[in-house]
Amino acid sequence: MSIKSTNIHWHEGNLTRDERWKALGVKGCTLWFTGLSASGKSTIASALEQVLVNEGTHSYRLDGDNIRFGLNSNLGFSAEDRAENIRRIGEVCKLFCDNGSVTIASFISPYTADRDNVRKIHEDAGLAFFEVFADTPIEVCEERDPKGLYKKARAGEIKGFTGIDDPYEAPEKAELHLKPAEHELDECVKQCLEFLEAKGFLTAKAGA
Amino acid sequence: MSIKSTNIHWHEGNLTRDERWKALGVKGCTLWFTGLSASGKSTIASALEQVLVNEGTHSYRLDGDNIRFGLNSNLGFSAEDRAENIRRIGEVCKLFCDNGSVTIASFISPYTADRDNVRKIHEDAGLAFFEVFADTPIEVCEERDPKGLYKKARAGEIKGFTGIDDPYEAPEKAELHLKPAEHELDECVKQCLEFLEAKGFLTAKAGA
Repeated sequence: MSIKSTNIHWHEGNLTRDERWKALGVKGCTLWFTGLSASGKSTIASALEQVLVNEGTHSYRLDGDNIRFGLNSNLGFSAEDRAENIRRIGEVCKLFCDNGSVTIASFISPYTADRDNVRKIHEDAGLAFFEVFADTPIEVCEERDPKGLYKKARAGEIKGFTGIDDPYEAPEKAELHLKPAEHELDECVKQCLEFLEAKGFLTAKAGA
Repeated sequence: MSIKSTNIHWHEGNLTRDERWKALGVKGCTLWFTGLSASGKSTIASALEQVLVNEGTHSYRLDGDNIRFGLNSNLGFSAEDRAENIRRIGEVCKLFCDNGSVTIASFISPYTADRDNVRKIHEDAGLAFFEVFADTPIEVCEERDPKGLYKKARAGEIKGFTGIDDPYEAPEKAELHLKPAEHELDECVKQCLEFLEAKGFLTAKAGA
């Protein structure tokens, strides 16, 4: 793009979502991964993002790494702060979705009410929201325990740990139900891709 | 993209920013518009976004419309809430920037400390941040007064209004200094485009 050759023109009012998506060849939705700590949700989410982006579908992933130390660095772990944590993430997902990204959120998000609130934020904005349940039994998660968090929770060193002394409310209407303890990682990623393809959210050009 | 023809492969760890930007042909930065109410900053920002997107450069705009009623709906106008408002917006800009969008923020953002904080958030993440000063004299803004806000502020119906009974700290190191009262809208947009081109952030393919 060269300024010299550019016709600088625009219309009154703001760019609409349809105009944006059409001009850029993108189509946004949110895939909201929920599951216990060590359920495998972030591993699947990370691999999915890589495949999507490398194939040319715009995708962006939100998880603890880029949220807890930034946007939500001023939140703790009280009930109120946990709800606000998910609410803010939901609002940011809505923006990325509107932007045309296949937005992938990966958070334990143990409470149905919080997840339903994020769903409503999307639906009110006319955007597609899909819940993805990484359904790994707690025994498996605790056996894996890559960060030693379950051990600390059992020892009482961490309070309010999901699945130990705080509830995990499993989704009852997840659009995608993954079983990471029974299927290999690539099978789980494939299920996500097939779901997105069926819903029409793989926007990379054919043959790309 | 068809699942059947897709080689599903990925590497350990997360997609890096370089991989993402290269795969998608994008390059992110943040253009932070600051200026008085009715200075013209949002009009320029909106037109700029339209031109960029229609030419194929990924761009996303954050302004009061999509932030105040969403992410920051639980913030008021106390000094603390105003700072938090800008901080959260800055963090979201950082994410869009990382995503590879030419991110356009348009907020009065009257305090130097808040704007400098957003700059630091970007610089600490290795991302480009540019301050764009919509430098319209307050007399002109007050004369325009499209929403009747200056009138209300003068009448004491709005307290703490920037430029009337709350200070506007003009940027001293803005990368781009626009004079919307002296230049037509298309000239201001062109200055922004030329700036972005000179810095290498127009990523639409040549001839597109």
